[in-house]
Amino acid sequence: MAMCKSHGQDSSYFIGWQEYEKNPYDPIQNPSGIIQMGLAENQVLVSFMAEIRRKKVKFDPKNLVLTAGSTSANETLIFCLAEPGEALLIPTPYYPGFDRDLKWRTGAEIVPIHCYSSNNFRITESALEEAYEQAQKLNLTVKGVFITNPSNPLGTTMSHDELNILITFAMAKNIHIVSDEIYAGTVFDSPKFISIMEALIDRKLEKSKMWNQVHIVSSLSKDLGLPGFRIGMIYSNNETLIAAATKMSSFGLISSQTQYLLSKILGDRKFIKRYIKENKKQLIHRREMLASGLANSGIKCLESNAGLFCFIDMRDLLKSNTFEAEMELWKKIISDVGLNVSPGSSCHCSEPGWFRVCFANMSKETLDLAMQRISNFVNSEGNLLPNFQQQPPLVAATGSRRIRTIANWVVKLSSGEGRTDR
Amino acid sequence: MAMCKSHGQDSSYFIGWQEYEKNPYDPIQNPSGIIQMGLAENQVLVSFMAEIRRKKVKFDPKNLVLTAGSTSANETLIFCLAEPGEALLIPTPYYPGFDRDLKWRTGAEIVPIHCYSSNNFRITESALEEAYEQAQKLNLTVKGVFITNPSNPLGTTMSHDELNILITFAMAKNIHIVSDEIYAGTVFDSPKFISIMEALIDRKLEKSKMWNQVHIVSSLSKDLGLPGFRIGMIYSNNETLIAAATKMSSFGLISSQTQYLLSKILGDRKFIKRYIKENKKQLIHRREMLASGLANSGIKCLESNAGLFCFIDMRDLLKSNTFEAEMELWKKIISDVGLNVSPGSSCHCSEPGWFRVCFANMSKETLDLAMQRISNFVNSEGNLLPNFQQQPPLVAATGSRRIRTIANWVVKLSSGEGRTDR
Repeated sequence: MAMCKSHGQDSSYFIGWQEYEKNPYDPIQNPSGIIQMGLAENQVLVSFMAEIRRKKVKFDPKNLVLTAGSTSANETLIFCLAEPGEALLIPTPYYPGFDRDLKWRTGAEIVPIHCYSSNNFRITESALEEAYEQAQKLNLTVKGVFITNPSNPLGTTMSHDELNILITFAMAKNIHIVSDEIYAGTVFDSPKFISIMEALIDRKLEKSKMWNQVHIVSSLSKDLGLPGFRIGMIYSNNETLIAAATKMSSFGLISSQTQYLLSKILGDRKFIKRYIKENKKQLIHRREMLASGLANSGIKCLESNAGLFCFIDMRDLLKSNTFEAEMELWKKIISDVGLNVSPGSSCHCSEPGWFRVCFANMSKETLDLAMQRISNFVNSEGNLLPNFQQQPPLVAATGSRRIRTIANWVVKLSSGEGRTDR
Repeated sequence: MAMCKSHGQDSSYFIGWQEYEKNPYDPIQNPSGIIQMGLAENQVLVSFMAEIRRKKVKFDPKNLVLTAGSTSANETLIFCLAEPGEALLIPTPYYPGFDRDLKWRTGAEIVPIHCYSSNNFRITESALEEAYEQAQKLNLTVKGVFITNPSNPLGTTMSHDELNILITFAMAKNIHIVSDEIYAGTVFDSPKFISIMEALIDRKLEKSKMWNQVHIVSSLSKDLGLPGFRIGMIYSNNETLIAAATKMSSFGLISSQTQYLLSKILGDRKFIKRYIKENKKQLIHRREMLASGLANSGIKCLESNAGLFCFIDMRDLLKSNTFEAEMELWKKIISDVGLNVSPGSSCHCSEPGWFRVCFANMSKETLDLAMQRISNFVNSEGNLLPNFQQQPPLVAATGSRRIRTIANWVVKLSSGEGRTDR
């Protein structure tokens, strides 16, 4: 679609506009000067993108397209890259919304790249090849690999090795890479985050064909905790794609006063630096609260260094090693324990027993309460785990009135990073 | 697509959300009360919709979906109603952007309903039937008629008769009607504007199948002169469509602070009433300036009562009755006269020689200047028209220095109602 001319903007109606824009009007200062409508925040946004990527990559404002949120950015990229019936390969587990965002209106297909806990859900060459072969069996032309780095739901960043395997694979198959990097600003621990663009530069691929086949999605929803602003971005070195995406951005523009407010916020470099620093500190603390709280109940988290969530291992609590048992456990966690977490199966995880648990969208007190509830659950239901450490019963700590209230609570651990549903 | 389940939101991930939302959290006031994220401006928006439609129709907030601008609203409706290769019938002339907005990503087709100046470009039964037959010849399933009322580029409102012909036709064919009513708030003269919804009610069709097959697009860009806000709306009595459109609105949400600001503006009912009244007064005045200015040069405007533009008749200035001659004249108007107007052919007008001229996006002085230039052009180029009234030459009035400046000017008459390109 990026290559196709059917968008109708070559009409004389629009050409007339361009003619005007070459020679615009101001009655006093510059009778032939163009009237700037809307604001050009691209410069301040690429500076911010570079900032959260440790300035390893120089981003060019002309390669950036603004969209109303990353949901729109992702869909726009798929509209540009794939025709109906063509496929994207996506490592599992992945954000459940992609089934809507990437497939629904574009008609594109998703073929999973199956990753497993045995290597902490890392991408391997063989997993990529298997997915590619699977697509071929299904008669689907593969147009690209779509990664989320840092990963949602894993909370992990991709290693240099993984990125290199991916790039080598994409070059061999002559396909695109879309890297959804909306959690780049949430990396709170080592190893450092490596953007796909940085990985390309490290391999000196600036002059290669691949340079034009890699596209980044970014956002301020997680990086700055501004989901209500609906600021998504597409970054690409591919001029044709950027031109098409710019036209498509008409379907979801950001209001001018939001852009204005944004420019003021991002223009305050000191504030931004302090915000990022403080945010990381808080995330480390919350992540540690969650991990140690769960450890008390004998539940392990996948090791992670980013994101607002952990991927937790509840395989020992399954009645059997099946997705049916996972759903049964999940229903119990919602209704009996009163926690809304996301089952791994909703993220197309290839193994039953994993759950995504968010830790950044509630007070410390609520997080404590959630840990207590899990502890009670593991304790009371004959779910005693090998590493379980006995906790004082909740009743003693809270009193009977509070208990009644708590029974009505559902603590939301699965998401709620604001207004969006990621 | 509105009927289809492939949007992936039945995943347990989203069901978990719904469970949470049934029983939400507040630690003090209502431990089981839902946290409202984003603002619900639907009530204030349906009140506004009713206001500019003389309160003839009662709009229900639950039938409204907000989108980031009417461009997105239009595309969303087509995604809901038509599969790739299915068709919408659209009366000519129509807004050139529809070729992009309605067709590009949806894969839907547009079949023109040819309207002619002989009856002031009104829709007739035979024109509708001809378009329908044409679609059948092209093997296209017709899913609906898409009208713009008030019309862009005509600046006219549809009569009761026209709306009735249209409704009867849609009922007979069992197809949808989409009514783009984004200029409803710009109606400045009689006859009064009749919304498609009002026409349905007048015919007591509330219980008919048609009641669920009529959908309105509205916006604040023209009604309130707020194009930068990017506020579009879909209104429909069709629950299935509203549900699908609500899901699609994820691809173009309005930022929460824009919604907040909007609720403050629309909440001031007195201001809104005064704004609408004053706006109409100004539009009448500008339209009169344009019409009389053009009449001085012997050029007629199509009679109109709405919009920010007139459709003007320059057929007498064509070298031949062809679209080639229209393009030649248009190029001359841009380069020699220094006016950016839109040729009728860009709006798929069925007759050469018509141009859309905007009058509301410039100062009175600029509008005067534009009229002077047209007068000079008609006078100087041997284009003398039968009704031409001699004007003093521009040089005498402005002096030579100004003339040089003017030569570099392109006065933008074709559009520029703000940030969007309609």
